[in-house]
Amino acid sequence: MSNAPNQPLRMALIGGGGAGFIGKVHATAATLDRQAELVAGALSSNPDKSKAAAAAFGIAPDRAYGSYQELLDAESKLPADRRVNFVSIATPNFTHCDIACAAMEAGFHAVCDKPMTTNLDDAQRMLDTVETTGRVFALTHNYSGYPLMRQAREMIANGELGEIIAVRATYVQGWMHGMDPQAEQARGAWKSDPLKNGRAGSLGDVGTHAFHLASFVTGLHPEALLSNMQSYSRHHELDDYGHSLVRFDQGATGMITWSQMTHGRQNDLSIEVDGTKAALTWRQEEPNQMFVRALGQPTKIYERDPNSSYASPDAIAACRLPGGHPEAFFEAFANVYRNAFEDMRRVDAGESFDRSKSLYPSVADGVAGVRFMTRCLDSAAADSAWQKW
Amino acid sequence: MSNAPNQPLRMALIGGGGAGFIGKVHATAATLDRQAELVAGALSSNPDKSKAAAAAFGIAPDRAYGSYQELLDAESKLPADRRVNFVSIATPNFTHCDIACAAMEAGFHAVCDKPMTTNLDDAQRMLDTVETTGRVFALTHNYSGYPLMRQAREMIANGELGEIIAVRATYVQGWMHGMDPQAEQARGAWKSDPLKNGRAGSLGDVGTHAFHLASFVTGLHPEALLSNMQSYSRHHELDDYGHSLVRFDQGATGMITWSQMTHGRQNDLSIEVDGTKAALTWRQEEPNQMFVRALGQPTKIYERDPNSSYASPDAIAACRLPGGHPEAFFEAFANVYRNAFEDMRRVDAGESFDRSKSLYPSVADGVAGVRFMTRCLDSAAADSAWQKW
Amino acid sequence: MSNAPNQPLRMALIGGGGAGFIGKVHATAATLDRQAELVAGALSSNPDKSKAAAAAFGIAPDRAYGSYQELLDAESKLPADRRVNFVSIATPNFTHCDIACAAMEAGFHAVCDKPMTTNLDDAQRMLDTVETTGRVFALTHNYSGYPLMRQAREMIANGELGEIIAVRATYVQGWMHGMDPQAEQARGAWKSDPLKNGRAGSLGDVGTHAFHLASFVTGLHPEALLSNMQSYSRHHELDDYGHSLVRFDQGATGMITWSQMTHGRQNDLSIEVDGTKAALTWRQEEPNQMFVRALGQPTKIYERDPNSSYASPDAIAACRLPGGHPEAFFEAFANVYRNAFEDMRRVDAGESFDRSKSLYPSVADGVAGVRFMTRCLDSAAADSAWQKW
Amino acid sequence: MSNAPNQPLRMALIGGGGAGFIGKVHATAATLDRQAELVAGALSSNPDKSKAAAAAFGIAPDRAYGSYQELLDAESKLPADRRVNFVSIATPNFTHCDIACAAMEAGFHAVCDKPMTTNLDDAQRMLDTVETTGRVFALTHNYSGYPLMRQAREMIANGELGEIIAVRATYVQGWMHGMDPQAEQARGAWKSDPLKNGRAGSLGDVGTHAFHLASFVTGLHPEALLSNMQSYSRHHELDDYGHSLVRFDQGATGMITWSQMTHGRQNDLSIEVDGTKAALTWRQEEPNQMFVRALGQPTKIYERDPNSSYASPDAIAACRLPGGHPEAFFEAFANVYRNAFEDMRRVDAGESFDRSKSLYPSVADGVAGVRFMTRCLDSAAADSAWQKW
Repeated sequence: MSNAPNQPLRMALIGGGGAGFIGKVHATAATLDRQAELVAGALSSNPDKSKAAAAAFGIAPDRAYGSYQELLDAESKLPADRRVNFVSIATPNFTHCDIACAAMEAGFHAVCDKPMTTNLDDAQRMLDTVETTGRVFALTHNYSGYPLMRQAREMIANGELGEIIAVRATYVQGWMHGMDPQAEQARGAWKSDPLKNGRAGSLGDVGTHAFHLASFVTGLHPEALLSNMQSYSRHHELDDYGHSLVRFDQGATGMITWSQMTHGRQNDLSIEVDGTKAALTWRQEEPNQMFVRALGQPTKIYERDPNSSYASPDAIAACRLPGGHPEAFFEAFANVYRNAFEDMRRVDAGESFDRSKSLYPSVADGVAGVRFMTRCLDSAAADSAWQKW
Repeated sequence: MSNAPNQPLRMALIGGGGAGFIGKVHATAATLDRQAELVAGALSSNPDKSKAAAAAFGIAPDRAYGSYQELLDAESKLPADRRVNFVSIATPNFTHCDIACAAMEAGFHAVCDKPMTTNLDDAQRMLDTVETTGRVFALTHNYSGYPLMRQAREMIANGELGEIIAVRATYVQGWMHGMDPQAEQARGAWKSDPLKNGRAGSLGDVGTHAFHLASFVTGLHPEALLSNMQSYSRHHELDDYGHSLVRFDQGATGMITWSQMTHGRQNDLSIEVDGTKAALTWRQEEPNQMFVRALGQPTKIYERDPNSSYASPDAIAACRLPGGHPEAFFEAFANVYRNAFEDMRRVDAGESFDRSKSLYPSVADGVAGVRFMTRCLDSAAADSAWQKW
Repeated sequence: MSNAPNQPLRMALIGGGGAGFIGKVHATAATLDRQAELVAGALSSNPDKSKAAAAAFGIAPDRAYGSYQELLDAESKLPADRRVNFVSIATPNFTHCDIACAAMEAGFHAVCDKPMTTNLDDAQRMLDTVETTGRVFALTHNYSGYPLMRQAREMIANGELGEIIAVRATYVQGWMHGMDPQAEQARGAWKSDPLKNGRAGSLGDVGTHAFHLASFVTGLHPEALLSNMQSYSRHHELDDYGHSLVRFDQGATGMITWSQMTHGRQNDLSIEVDGTKAALTWRQEEPNQMFVRALGQPTKIYERDPNSSYASPDAIAACRLPGGHPEAFFEAFANVYRNAFEDMRRVDAGESFDRSKSLYPSVADGVAGVRFMTRCLDSAAADSAWQKW
Repeated sequence: MSNAPNQPLRMALIGGGGAGFIGKVHATAATLDRQAELVAGALSSNPDKSKAAAAAFGIAPDRAYGSYQELLDAESKLPADRRVNFVSIATPNFTHCDIACAAMEAGFHAVCDKPMTTNLDDAQRMLDTVETTGRVFALTHNYSGYPLMRQAREMIANGELGEIIAVRATYVQGWMHGMDPQAEQARGAWKSDPLKNGRAGSLGDVGTHAFHLASFVTGLHPEALLSNMQSYSRHHELDDYGHSLVRFDQGATGMITWSQMTHGRQNDLSIEVDGTKAALTWRQEEPNQMFVRALGQPTKIYERDPNSSYASPDAIAACRLPGGHPEAFFEAFANVYRNAFEDMRRVDAGESFDRSKSLYPSVADGVAGVRFMTRCLDSAAADSAWQKW
């Protein structure tokens, strides 16, 4: 699995052959900087579909596998300079744990879509597997890949906002109003099935993104939370609307809001952080601007602009274009990959790396996300009573 | 107290002589349409200050009184065609009940700033007094006076949004970061004193506005709520940051958020309503636009525009200018007055009116606001447990 | 015509009784601060209509006159403490000169709507009359009354933008698409009639506002201009769309754009100023924010906020409310009046004043506006050739 | 030069090895959809630099050439299934013509940065070469690649805006304020040198983009234009600020504005189109939204959303992600490539294609752009007199 410097890493995609778009996102994001090439895939749990889908991804027929097990077996037997370096997992939630663990045990690095898995036992197993195999594991909480979220994190870590007293992260979508339960290949059909999706509905699909972003940006850790959630759609039983009030360490208050039933809102993730010196706000749908405010001062608009006087090191490193040449979803997603690639190259070169310092979301972030879902479900079942973290 | 049609009503202002600006707001808003004139005042609880402040308000010295009692006494003795028709109460919260009740018992209509009072007993007394005296009572939850909030209310009442499933009302300010506890005449100094302000800090000052607006626009009623609130400023003990999760009738979820510790946010009241057919959002600081969204459709920006094809009757009635000629805070505030004047003229002409159908916030809204504060405080004291309404 | 300090000035309104809204704007703006009261009017050139309209304005029947001449005659004969102090002229353009000159010659101050008049001869006559009578004359280029335009002017005067190299002022509306030439009382019907409106159509109606704002804010003076204009509506022959390229002194480039044929744009006046140190932009429909930019720095949003660290003296003086409590069209219009009132009180008290330093638009600004229209028309007639100022 | 379907096309990059970023943009955009791979390059006119830069682009040393001539020679001799299919030209303007003509004459397709060349003779030669060689030629006026600009074009072609009466396209930047004439490798250093850049400064760099976008979206053709331009920077003699007033066919008025001296504006290209039925506005820095307005109707925000009810076929085809997952600069740039690839595959398969119907900017658009620059320069030299197209 060695790889010459400057040579692209070899990627296998697991999942992504269905109606959803996230498989294509992984393929595009991973290869955006031409640091990786997609050479293998097990794109569907249906072998015929898997092979049929491969052409659209530019995967040669002989490396379009009928299942992830087949892929891991076959790739393991290829010579080191042909074999894939990593697998990207874009399958329904309930399969992440088995696939990721098998891949890492077979010696591959893994990039996995979120939520990491559906329950704390699986989450612990993934954490253990990362530790025992020493593989790189990255979770695509892709919104933390936006340069201005990196900037926000650094500003807060540097104390520019003072002590953080509150964070509000809100992720609202409306597509569930258009859900057609009869459609066979409906986008996100499995997301309504508790067996495939897990018990957390929109909480898992979007709520965990909001929670992760709040944690990533502020560096705060939860001590307790309470939650209320509802299921307003007639087409499923999982939550599609909810709030979680979080007691973070140092006394900060968090409010995480999620919805997939807010008409006409597309992918509206936003975050607001209040500190004792300043406050900031950012919104994913206009990701190239962040607003920083302090009492009595002009509101400052920070652009994603690597040439500006104010851009922080991690923000600069996450940019590909000068200010005013907007970057967006793919680039942020690609930043998660780009950061993970650095560690993959280190591991493949026999070097060590510090998992706790990764800018990309780690297995620990994945465990936290599963814990967040679990505690929210517990609280909702207990009439919104506080749950210790 | 009779008044010829087209002749301005006569107004007395109680409070407003201090460092705050709300007294001037009442004076300007009440007279904006030249349907009222400010002729009398008891502008401070300090008689000398009261008289000194009168000149700046254009009040003649002989009607600048040293106390509200003096004002009510003296005005009662004036002939009907000179005597004030109504009093406007812009004093600290704990005094509202006594002043309003005394004024109504003396035969005057009353317009009162919010929150109506500090506890449910007082609130009940005010409700009783309104009923027994038959006077007009209006509470200046002024944000409901914005034309587009009237439009939102009518659209929802007409079913244009379908069933309402959720409402999020957020009111964030940051001025408490600049609070100087040493300053003698600090803006809102009494707002930090539980004895003058009541036990609800920012909850009463801004949270009740957000709650009222959510109720006004959606027409929903709370069944239960829980709350968490914090006191982050070092300069007082009252809450300055909080959330309340509200279970409205028909299963709708409400989230009321308030803060006076969010750096650089000035007066940022916003509301988002989700229905089964459409959703809307509006923000007080850009009050001439409202966003209406439905899945798959273009987002529609409704302007405050009485000549548009979509303006609703109450919205049209609340406009003074064509679209693009922005109206703002004073006009919304004035709309509360203008609506109340209609009822005042009816009462003064011996006609009846239906208090439950007023567009201006009524004593019942005031009771609801006090109940909201009380239940939030109860829940906060009970570790955020749900409280029945 | 004397007036005790703190006593309101007495106002007469000429025009305003028709379908337009500008008469009501004058009445509301002049009295907003309760520094004036509207006591007399000649609201229409039709005596019956004039008297009929008076009630809606709260004008007593005995001071509702049948013509402006009648008004000036009658008011002149009233005792000084009842007689009006000033007249506000809200009539079709071609009548401004006669009315204003007659009023000033009769000893009254005059506030006049724009454009000041329809030709340079009349403009000169108005200038002469102002000089010979010593009366206060204010022209309601109301957009210069916005606090942030005052702030922009001061910042530029103080050199905060460096040398000004360019200014772009754009005023686009779309209402002419709805013009119904059959309607008898159509809004702005006279605006399509060259005899009543003058030869400048939208150029006069909105273009002069844009030109004035550019001049007011930058302090620049034109040396030459060229223009192109079109008449796209089928319902009239006057221009409804145009551009003027202006060569300002010090080499600055100006672009003035006007349109009343831009669908769905309501009253969209905006200005952009480029300097060698910084640049700013502002838009009338969101008047409480101005954007200040410099290369490599965060964009700064200046709020209309008298308590901010950055508010300039003239901006502070033009505010009535704290930041976040939006002010809008009426308040800006009222600021023109409020500034003029200061000079009126000076004159009425026998004091001198410096007309060239007025913050409110003066007769000299009116002459400049008429010159701007004239030169644009000249250039358009000469195939867009440059015209010396 | 044959290529199996689904196999990536092979790309050579000429230029891009210097301080600018546009070479990397070409590389990323061309390969974004994994329909092309970058395999060869002549990245600098300095052979050593050219070879040194190749590694960063992932180009193998044996295909990193010392000059474009060397590249064309060597690639021509490679077998058809290894040889590049097309060259991308990201060099200073004055070299475009020679390189593109040589490449096409050698049998390669060409993608060329803008402006196409510096004078009309060269432009004609390029047009002739395209016609004689039958190669695909695409000019990267990349802003026309944004899905919503495709949507605008289709809406206008379908008559949804009625007849077009006016278009305003504005492209303002501010980076020239930071230009350091001493820096050896300054961004855009050659852009200040008339010999390398051509006589059109910002006019060529950004003005042509604005002109192209106006033409692309409206489908209008110029009949005449006048122009005024200035050189405000002390560091060069070319224009850095200008306006061109354009008389389009059917009587429409165009205003093209360009600046690279507007402090703090980054890459602010915007377009406004006025029709007799509706008007639209769009801004490159927030490219996922377009505003469509009609008198009396709510403003409609069209999102870049392939699943919306309103998305037009070309807009849908230009999207890679669902609404709310923002796309930006790279994707728009990639759309130019993606469209050109379709024609390249047709030509390489021996099929015919209709150059006049390409969605990607063609050599004819390039000629128009050079004509636009030439006529603006002519007019500026003739005291802004109208120039026939």
